[in-house]
Amino acid sequence: MMQFSELITKLGSAVAASSLGTDSQLDPILTGLAPIESAGSGMISYIEGDKFAKFVGSTGASALILPMNEVIQAAAIDRGIAWIAASEPRLLFAQVIKVFYQPFRLPVGIHPSAVVEAGVELGENVSIGAHVVIQPGVKIGNGVTIHPNVVIYPDVEIGDRSILHANCTIHERVRIGAGCVIHSGAAIGSEGFGFVPTASGWFKMEQAGYTVLEDGVEIGCNSSVDRPAVGETRIGRDTKLDNLVHVGHGCLIGSNCALAAQVGLAGGVKVGNGVLLAGQVGVANQVTIGDRAIASSKTGIHRNVDPGEVVSGYPAVSHKLWLKTSAIVNRLPEMYQFFKRNQSS
Amino acid sequence: MMQFSELITKLGSAVAASSLGTDSQLDPILTGLAPIESAGSGMISYIEGDKFAKFVGSTGASALILPMNEVIQAAAIDRGIAWIAASEPRLLFAQVIKVFYQPFRLPVGIHPSAVVEAGVELGENVSIGAHVVIQPGVKIGNGVTIHPNVVIYPDVEIGDRSILHANCTIHERVRIGAGCVIHSGAAIGSEGFGFVPTASGWFKMEQAGYTVLEDGVEIGCNSSVDRPAVGETRIGRDTKLDNLVHVGHGCLIGSNCALAAQVGLAGGVKVGNGVLLAGQVGVANQVTIGDRAIASSKTGIHRNVDPGEVVSGYPAVSHKLWLKTSAIVNRLPEMYQFFKRNQSS
Amino acid sequence: MMQFSELITKLGSAVAASSLGTDSQLDPILTGLAPIESAGSGMISYIEGDKFAKFVGSTGASALILPMNEVIQAAAIDRGIAWIAASEPRLLFAQVIKVFYQPFRLPVGIHPSAVVEAGVELGENVSIGAHVVIQPGVKIGNGVTIHPNVVIYPDVEIGDRSILHANCTIHERVRIGAGCVIHSGAAIGSEGFGFVPTASGWFKMEQAGYTVLEDGVEIGCNSSVDRPAVGETRIGRDTKLDNLVHVGHGCLIGSNCALAAQVGLAGGVKVGNGVLLAGQVGVANQVTIGDRAIASSKTGIHRNVDPGEVVSGYPAVSHKLWLKTSAIVNRLPEMYQFFKRNQSS
Repeated sequence: MMQFSELITKLGSAVAASSLGTDSQLDPILTGLAPIESAGSGMISYIEGDKFAKFVGSTGASALILPMNEVIQAAAIDRGIAWIAASEPRLLFAQVIKVFYQPFRLPVGIHPSAVVEAGVELGENVSIGAHVVIQPGVKIGNGVTIHPNVVIYPDVEIGDRSILHANCTIHERVRIGAGCVIHSGAAIGSEGFGFVPTASGWFKMEQAGYTVLEDGVEIGCNSSVDRPAVGETRIGRDTKLDNLVHVGHGCLIGSNCALAAQVGLAGGVKVGNGVLLAGQVGVANQVTIGDRAIASSKTGIHRNVDPGEVVSGYPAVSHKLWLKTSAIVNRLPEMYQFFKRNQSS
Repeated sequence: MMQFSELITKLGSAVAASSLGTDSQLDPILTGLAPIESAGSGMISYIEGDKFAKFVGSTGASALILPMNEVIQAAAIDRGIAWIAASEPRLLFAQVIKVFYQPFRLPVGIHPSAVVEAGVELGENVSIGAHVVIQPGVKIGNGVTIHPNVVIYPDVEIGDRSILHANCTIHERVRIGAGCVIHSGAAIGSEGFGFVPTASGWFKMEQAGYTVLEDGVEIGCNSSVDRPAVGETRIGRDTKLDNLVHVGHGCLIGSNCALAAQVGLAGGVKVGNGVLLAGQVGVANQVTIGDRAIASSKTGIHRNVDPGEVVSGYPAVSHKLWLKTSAIVNRLPEMYQFFKRNQSS
Repeated sequence: MMQFSELITKLGSAVAASSLGTDSQLDPILTGLAPIESAGSGMISYIEGDKFAKFVGSTGASALILPMNEVIQAAAIDRGIAWIAASEPRLLFAQVIKVFYQPFRLPVGIHPSAVVEAGVELGENVSIGAHVVIQPGVKIGNGVTIHPNVVIYPDVEIGDRSILHANCTIHERVRIGAGCVIHSGAAIGSEGFGFVPTASGWFKMEQAGYTVLEDGVEIGCNSSVDRPAVGETRIGRDTKLDNLVHVGHGCLIGSNCALAAQVGLAGGVKVGNGVLLAGQVGVANQVTIGDRAIASSKTGIHRNVDPGEVVSGYPAVSHKLWLKTSAIVNRLPEMYQFFKRNQSS
């Protein structure tokens, strides 16, 4: 609970960094955060873009973060709502959330039920939860948090301040950078799917390579990042993966990418920097995707994608072409009737 | 092992609730349950619909639950198979299964290896398995079963008689109703995928909202239901999710829905009551799906769906149109030849 | 670290089984394995097929496994790289990996923190990791390895030499053969998604059947194989499943198949022997797929597939037809213009 003015003070440099206008007349007491549609008295919320602008007329929020739009600001003033305006309201609201809420962190220390084998190097101020298991030859940095029931195989390094959520598994030959987050149930460095067909059945190819997550990488719940036979699977700095994503063995993903839920990359896929793959996108073996390319949800990518290209469809084509052909496909019944009437010609 | 007549007695009101005919002449001893195709002597099975009716002539089952169809019943009589008929044979067979089989339940009590932190409220007759970890500020109802290696973060409530299977994770700010089932490996209340793009990279939006599962909800193995930044992610009463389903932050799902395996909902999706989404369906951000709508498997939904609408395809269109266009797409080679011959006209 | 000649000796019968040529002039000391693109001094790598042949001119590898191609071999000789040639270079390289690397195996014995309930039968030389939980009525074969935090429900059998990776869950009524591998987070024998619609909501069908994995089966990370209401879910000998695969209740999968990541099979699907399903393929209820059929990635299969058939597309058609129609779909804008100009005719 805090006054609006106190919040503004706490935001400090975040406020200074945006170009802001503020209504200093009102100073309500704020008790929490809410979405604009359902915010009640004492709540602070935000409006981003025109789609939600109408809610300024109906919200019960006591304070709002608004875009640099004087019409919306005037409406807030009319309704007696305290406000602050920012060029990026969602970004400022993310900073407001941090003032009100920090996610649960384990206390520093090693729970007595954790099994930390001999030959594990632990940094300062680590938090190791109940029933964690850390095999020999693991190196844990400073300030690392490992939630309960995590299992870490041998020959793993985890950088400073990284967080491993409950029930995830880190396999051998994994290097996790600083400030990474591995969410519940994820499997990092698991064996790549490598079977050579022979006359007498599949011959298993052992996966002797390494899996590297650079600094600031997040891996979503129940996602898997496989270890390759040789060389590396690598995910670049600050790249974020959502839940249930599969990254096959030997994939090399650049920095600052975002892969949404249920994306799947087959083996040896190369992804540039700043790439966005929406939900359920699939990428075939050995495909290369250029920097800043975007694939919309459910796209099936069987060929290389150029830097900056926006693709959709199965198989993937340019997003613009896909929009056109998707619309025309629905005219096929008429077109087919026409074809049938005229095909003899 | 029981006699057919004894089974009928045990079914009691279930039998009375259906409009039934029974053949009381035969009273075999039943030893188990089997599918109609492979049922042997001593087995009870069922037939639902015409597709399986032919098996009445070949099954080795000693007893059958049959539809209200005198031809099938006569065939059973001819072959000396005991039978009972019901208007919904599959429903009655589900009740028969319950007579023969109950899934494993942990004994009541707290396993000594479980870690239940101070400040956890436990109801009566709870079963807490080995190596379970329950953080402070958790409230567990009466008759709840928590299988081994489950982890529960702080600030969670779990309603009466709910069952949490092994290795699942319940994150902070989750409210689970009564009679829910969370299957193995599922992650409930995990952090929504919230990153705001900035000039210096992704800015992480903390997820300060709540995740609510109403009474009777089931969540399949390794599924994930994300916690939103503000407000709620909510799954309505008696809605069932299969395995490997992703529910993004802020989704609001109604009651009595069924979401099949590998369905993915992006953020802020609104789903009505009684909606059926078949396997691998994907739904884009902020889409609204009306009551009793149906999407067939692999449908990619990028736009709102009306109540009662049946959709298919990627992108989704009406199921009828999709059937038509999917058939005509296969005539495109001929149509294209025609087009090439005539395009100058 | 070993000399090239020593490696050849160690490969022994593997070398003899291939028809090989060897360059015996060079005998470098080998320190590790690497992909051809990035191999440096001391590394052994391999070349398979023309796509990678160009790298023989630039690789820093000290030794190579080459195809039976004298041009490539001559290039290696020119560059002073030791080599051995094989008709199947990738297979021989898989055998080379085994000489250099074996994955981590737990020591034999039962970790004191493991909970092995009364009435569990253990074979010889089993390895049971920390915090494993094994319920009553489980039978574990010889040489089985169970990594930390695995949970096994009652009434399970696990064959000799099988490996269960960390955090996986084996539910009741499961039979796992010899030499199987269950990867991290997988759920085997979990409850099938069985709900009968009634006027008062879903009626849960208990899943009283069995789940059988024959010898040599592998199940990838966070995959799920469901237990049926009656009868069996069965995966045949040496069939391999990648990560995040869903196998519905009552599926019967043959031997020597490979199902890539994120494949989903609905209930009662029948898959023959030697079938290949690429990533994100979906198969609808009760579909039958014949022996040696192949589905390319993202195929949506709603109808039976003949033995040996190669299918693609959503809905699935022959791969050849799909290639044709996928190309022509992109000409639809022109075709539609033509149609609009001429439709009155």
